[in-house]
Amino acid sequence: MSQTFIKTLREAPKDEIARNGALLTRAGYVHKEMAGVYDFLPMGLRVLEKIKSIIREELNKIGGQEVLLSTLQNPELWEKTGRFSNQQVDIWFKTELSSGGVVGLAPTHEEPITNLMKTYISSYKDLPLVAYQFQTKFRNEKRAKSGILRGREFLMKDMYSFHTSEDDLDRYYAEVEKAYERIFARLGLDDTYETFASGGIFSKYSHEYQTFLSVGEDTVYYNDDKSVVLNKEVYNDEVLGDLGVKREDLKETTAAEVGNIFKLKFKYSEPLGLEFSDEENHLKTVYMGCYGIGVSRVMGVIAEKYADEKGLVWPEQIAPYKYYLVAIGEAGAAKAEELYAGHEESVLYDDRAARPGEKFADFELMGIPYRVVVSDKTLAEDAVEVTDRKTGESKIVKLADFAID
Amino acid sequence: MSQTFIKTLREAPKDEIARNGALLTRAGYVHKEMAGVYDFLPMGLRVLEKIKSIIREELNKIGGQEVLLSTLQNPELWEKTGRFSNQQVDIWFKTELSSGGVVGLAPTHEEPITNLMKTYISSYKDLPLVAYQFQTKFRNEKRAKSGILRGREFLMKDMYSFHTSEDDLDRYYAEVEKAYERIFARLGLDDTYETFASGGIFSKYSHEYQTFLSVGEDTVYYNDDKSVVLNKEVYNDEVLGDLGVKREDLKETTAAEVGNIFKLKFKYSEPLGLEFSDEENHLKTVYMGCYGIGVSRVMGVIAEKYADEKGLVWPEQIAPYKYYLVAIGEAGAAKAEELYAGHEESVLYDDRAARPGEKFADFELMGIPYRVVVSDKTLAEDAVEVTDRKTGESKIVKLADFAID
Repeated sequence: MSQTFIKTLREAPKDEIARNGALLTRAGYVHKEMAGVYDFLPMGLRVLEKIKSIIREELNKIGGQEVLLSTLQNPELWEKTGRFSNQQVDIWFKTELSSGGVVGLAPTHEEPITNLMKTYISSYKDLPLVAYQFQTKFRNEKRAKSGILRGREFLMKDMYSFHTSEDDLDRYYAEVEKAYERIFARLGLDDTYETFASGGIFSKYSHEYQTFLSVGEDTVYYNDDKSVVLNKEVYNDEVLGDLGVKREDLKETTAAEVGNIFKLKFKYSEPLGLEFSDEENHLKTVYMGCYGIGVSRVMGVIAEKYADEKGLVWPEQIAPYKYYLVAIGEAGAAKAEELYAGHEESVLYDDRAARPGEKFADFELMGIPYRVVVSDKTLAEDAVEVTDRKTGESKIVKLADFAID
Repeated sequence: MSQTFIKTLREAPKDEIARNGALLTRAGYVHKEMAGVYDFLPMGLRVLEKIKSIIREELNKIGGQEVLLSTLQNPELWEKTGRFSNQQVDIWFKTELSSGGVVGLAPTHEEPITNLMKTYISSYKDLPLVAYQFQTKFRNEKRAKSGILRGREFLMKDMYSFHTSEDDLDRYYAEVEKAYERIFARLGLDDTYETFASGGIFSKYSHEYQTFLSVGEDTVYYNDDKSVVLNKEVYNDEVLGDLGVKREDLKETTAAEVGNIFKLKFKYSEPLGLEFSDEENHLKTVYMGCYGIGVSRVMGVIAEKYADEKGLVWPEQIAPYKYYLVAIGEAGAAKAEELYAGHEESVLYDDRAARPGEKFADFELMGIPYRVVVSDKTLAEDAVEVTDRKTGESKIVKLADFAID
């Protein structure tokens, strides 16, 4: 730590009213540039990258191919679907080219990826095909007071799938549902539920992934075993009838939308002319699906969900480091250096000249899963003291049994 | 390949006049959205990530801490250094917040990182400190006709260092020079030279890293052993006198700027008020340096530098895959599947139903380092045929001696 600028702050900016924003700022993960716009500091970037790795692994397993599309957007493309007008899409950031003409900053990528695939899809042999990216999106939100839960600039994973038939789209959609279940479970977001939401004009429903959360911006209704969860926007008699549930069996709660999946069918492929020739050489329109996860929002949701009165509590798999190492006394420091060597990726070594109490408080605020203390006292027992951030429980572990992984 | 959308195209877009843009498009690495704006397709993203990994490794070795700063920029900050006005900086993209007010898209990050460090630097004990990022920059270029050599949106590595004294800045600057030498050597850009360029008002010179390249946009002058290379902008009697070289000893050539390093000293820390208290508790201004590498430009330069009449030729360390595997005949296909299993990261297996000649041409256009052919003929010798893309030379390698790494 003495070689880094990882450090905690006494206070978050006064205008930071969201708990995730305040905690992440105080604990040294993010820095606020303006409302809804954050920098990711070394530990914040580590958490983001770990979230990305989990998502990437699961999407690669279901055939996703990673790409990186541009931010700057050509209006011509979006005019074909009617989505460049501020009336249709009210969160555009637009800017002017010095060579003339307006361009937009992509709030999402259905249009460019559909257009791109016109180059790569011509035959049924090219299908199915799935591409995804981790990309910074821009949305000109009127209000952005929820920390990294709602950004004007934020990191999103968006995936798009292309199919010859509705059956194949349905098949793949079900694969994504399973992958999303694995992803949210691995991220520690176990109370995340697939939620019925409005589907727009091409599907009756879309599905959102809602994590039950007191500061969530959405209202959802759910039954006892959470087999049916629906967004307030579709909480009406027709939908309840479709789903076979009664109002009296549902409870209301708040939730944060961490993902959504959508059977787009021909919504973009038709206006943009994305076609393939089938086995009989007939031209047909490509079926599409799209699948999002708000990566920086997920980080904020995890921060909110697990935080306690002492600070952040990261699940081990996305924590910036697994161990927070503190030495007390000279022998402790020598042993700590020894334990630290070669484990820079999993250990944050607090080698600062500060009181142990100050270090312990920083460990708690930062939310590293395990605190490891090496002192004369523990060394007298040939041991270290390991404290679990989540439970607060400490135990003495013999050095012979203690391996940093 | 049958499961991906990796494929070559017969033609690049008609408006793609740069060779790197045309080749990278035809070989399936990038897709052009508009002039100076490109998508990175699966193989293109792999190359970018490999370039990033090499740079990241070398910067971590010299104490760099990775961060990710925002694109959207608060004008207030940039007004303090006079750099928000279009007169001072003529490549801004600016856009309006729906809640009111103009913001800019960062063309570089001196102002926000200097301001950020006001939170993290207060004492000499906090220094030196070095932060870097891989971040998408936006520059509103009037002309962008050089493929990915000059983007309106492009990936850059920018690093900033903070010091208590000019001596310490000088010491670190020399460390960066060594790191940059290692980086460009590892990237395969061996004819890259540290080049004197104009330093602005705070330093007599800055240093650019110029790769000699026929399509480079810069003109440089160099002596025989390239111990002195200077940009045309400082090719005058005063500078030649400083450097102790004569006009008659210098030759002219074109080059592409792949990096630059700059002793900023107080240029940003003074107007933005970045100070530290020294050992005697006196407030002093922080010394700064900045160090850039154009990551996507580097990819374009490598493409241009190594390409031959058949297509791209990637150096092994940044190639999207090391091997391009082709099977001929049924026994060949069975053996190829066996060789491929577990090596998806290093092998691109061309399992398409296409003629070998077509596959061989794609291998050449894509520029994968080694082609591996397994056929009845090679199997009769218990061997594969390995062809070097760079030299075109083929050799028969016994299966017992052939290990995919």
